[in-house]
This record gives sequence, structure tokens and C-alpha cells, in this order.
Amino acid sequence: MRIALLGGTGDIGEGLALRWAFHTNHEVLVGSRDPERARTKAEEYETELDSRGVEVSIKGFENGMAADRADVIVLAVPPYHVADTVEAIAERLDDGDVLVSPATGMKRDEDGFHYHRPSAGSVTQLAADAAPEGVPVVGAFHNLAAGRLADLDAELGVDTLLVGDDEDAKETVRLLAEGIEGLRVLDAGGLANAPEIEAITPLLINVAMNNEGMHDLGVRFV
Amino acid sequence: MRIALLGGTGDIGEGLALRWAFHTNHEVLVGSRDPERARTKAEEYETELDSRGVEVSIKGFENGMAADRADVIVLAVPPYHVADTVEAIAERLDDGDVLVSPATGMKRDEDGFHYHRPSAGSVTQLAADAAPEGVPVVGAFHNLAAGRLADLDAELGVDTLLVGDDEDAKETVRLLAEGIEGLRVLDAGGLANAPEIEAITPLLINVAMNNEGMHDLGVRFV
Repeated sequence: MRIALLGGTGDIGEGLALRWAFHTNHEVLVGSRDPERARTKAEEYETELDSRGVEVSIKGFENGMAADRADVIVLAVPPYHVADTVEAIAERLDDGDVLVSPATGMKRDEDGFHYHRPSAGSVTQLAADAAPEGVPVVGAFHNLAAGRLADLDAELGVDTLLVGDDEDAKETVRLLAEGIEGLRVLDAGGLANAPEIEAITPLLINVAMNNEGMHDLGVRFV
Repeated sequence: MRIALLGGTGDIGEGLALRWAFHTNHEVLVGSRDPERARTKAEEYETELDSRGVEVSIKGFENGMAADRADVIVLAVPPYHVADTVEAIAERLDDGDVLVSPATGMKRDEDGFHYHRPSAGSVTQLAADAAPEGVPVVGAFHNLAAGRLADLDAELGVDTLLVGDDEDAKETVRLLAEGIEGLRVLDAGGLANAPEIEAITPLLINVAMNNEGMHDLGVRFV
């Protein structure tokens, strides 16, 4: 399958790109608003993988071009860019394409990080609201620590939760996610269940900040 | 230490009462609005423990009487009774007493369970707002599955997160929580960080509902 990581030059995008390229045979495309930056990062990822004996081609494109070429498009952009990113690529999306939303909204105060819930209900819902008719959105990868994800020496051993209203699209994303070693995929139901998942991300930072020796946390449901 | 479980006849109260009586030497008092019911349940807990070779005395009282006798008072009541329960026992609380809030607000729709955040910010904050000056509130035990907690044959192997603005009170609750075998206690910072913890509880139900073989879930930060 061909996966476009829009905002694939950012930290979560980098981690997903490296993991998919390292653990699977899926073709990874790095998207950015700046195609030059996308190409530079794509080369960096190739070099990193090459140093581990994995020879793959990772190409960089402007976001719209990357989306145009891909079957699954991951919106690995900051939450406040999710809607405009979807709108910018809307014309490039076909029926059968699947959008994936991993972003979450956070704000910080003196106590720590808090979930900043958008008026749409969740960032995942915000992506769904912006998506063209017939293009499903699946929420996934919300609670992964970027540093751990991008460090191919780090064992994941964490869960990721899927939400979505289109079962076929969810199945597609489940297969992609299960391709990443050490990632267990659990179903959390429909899109309306996204807020409670997105809210875990700031909590992971709070727990890391308040407990010695804990960092780059993920979550497991046991 | 003497622990009063207000609403100790309910499911989370039962689990905490049994675990503390089974694993520790703390004295457990069962509180209820109905003292007769408190006494009946306290006897049930004694019988359950006796059947496991643990001979302890567990007494039942009306909530206010239980609070009066205890050093730590757990508000194991439904979220909509947290404020009135605190108000009902306020006169019985002394400086040095610690209130513990494990409740969370949920509502259900066709997609599943959702966090029903009170206007106070969290149920834990609601308890703090109702508490008399000088009596600290610590949030804890929010994400424990009641059935698993009350089943002394079940290994816990889960985390509980503490929040609170009074470090001494938090330390007291940490020690109580650590007395429960299989429960790891993590610090999640100040009271303002409670909403993201309370929001996990409905998510645990959604995950259990959507994944075969998963039930009575807890969470681990890894």
C-alpha cells in the first residue's frame, strides 16, 4: 500500500515513516507544504534506514502531490493545521482513499498539559468535518511518544486505539498499524469516541513530568 | 490508619474495602447513608475475608459517623452525589483529614461511553470545591474496574494516578494505594490535571466493548 505522511517532516510523521519503511513493505511518501523540505527529510529517512541495512526508496513531495499518489493519507500535522491541510488536498482525494488523524490538541498551564478540545468535539472529528464526502477518516496513533516511535532501537510495547465510522477504512488502518512491530491495535468504536483518546496524550506528558525515570510514555490497556 | 469508604456499599467501595482489609493492616469503615445497609455490607466483607483466612473487623456506619472516625475518607459515591456527600459530612472533618475522590462522570450514547465533565472542571475538583477549608482532596482510583478490584483472586497489575495540590495528603494516599498488591501508583500532578484521568474510565468501557476477550480493563503507563 502507498502511505502519504502529510507533515511527514514533523516528529510523529518521522516516526511513522521510519517504522513503516523499516517493518513493512508499504511505500512511504513524505509530504510537506515545502516540497524541498519533504525531499530533504525523505533522504534523511533513507539514510537512517540504509544504516540499518534496509534499502528502501522514500520520496518527498508537496502535500497535495503526496496525497494524490497515496491510498492512505496520514494527517501528521499540528491540530490547528488539520482542517486547512484537508481542504488543501481535498481535490486530490478519490473514493477509496482513507484519511488518518493522529493529532491532538493540547494547552499548557502551570499544572501541566491539558486536552484542548476543539468545538468540533475532537481533532479527529475536525478532520472528518473537513474531508470530502465519501472519504472516511480514521483516528489512530494519538498516544504514541514521537521520540520513541522515531527511535528504531526502542521497543514500542504500547497500544494504539482506532476510532472511525467506516469499518472498511478502519480495517485498512488496522492492518497498517499492525505492521508496526510492538504496536497492539485496539478498536475504540466510532469517531464520537475520539475525545477520550486524544485526552490521553497530555496526560502522558503529565505523568512523565511527575515521575522520575518515566519519559516517552505510551499506554497499555490490561 | 483508619479509612472510611463513604458509599462503601457500592462497587468501587467494595473493592477498595476488600483490598485494604486483605492486603494491609489499615482499619476499614464502611459508610452509607443507610447505617443498616452499611452494617450488612461490612458483615459481608468480613465473611468474604474470613473465607480466605483473614480475620478482620469491618464496621458499618452512617456516612457522617464513618467520616468522624476516620483519617482518610474516600468518596466512593456516584459523581452527582460527591458534592452533597462532602457537605453532609463537612462538620465531621478535622484538619489533618484527607478526602479521596475516585468518581468520574460518564454519559452513554449509541457510540459508547463519554466523559461527562462537570462545570467545576472535574469530579475531583467538585469534591475539592465542596470540602471545608484546610481539608485537602486527592484524586485517586479513578480508572479501576470495580469487578476486578472486588475479586481478590484477580491480579490487578494496573496503575492508578494521583492528583492533588497538597503534597502531604498525596503522600498519605500514595502509601494507602501502594498497600494494595498489584497496584502501581503514579503521580499525575495537581488537581487541575484530573479531567484527563477521569476521561479514561469511559474509554476503558469503550475498548472493552469493542475488543473480544477484553473486560474489566485497567491502564498501564509504559
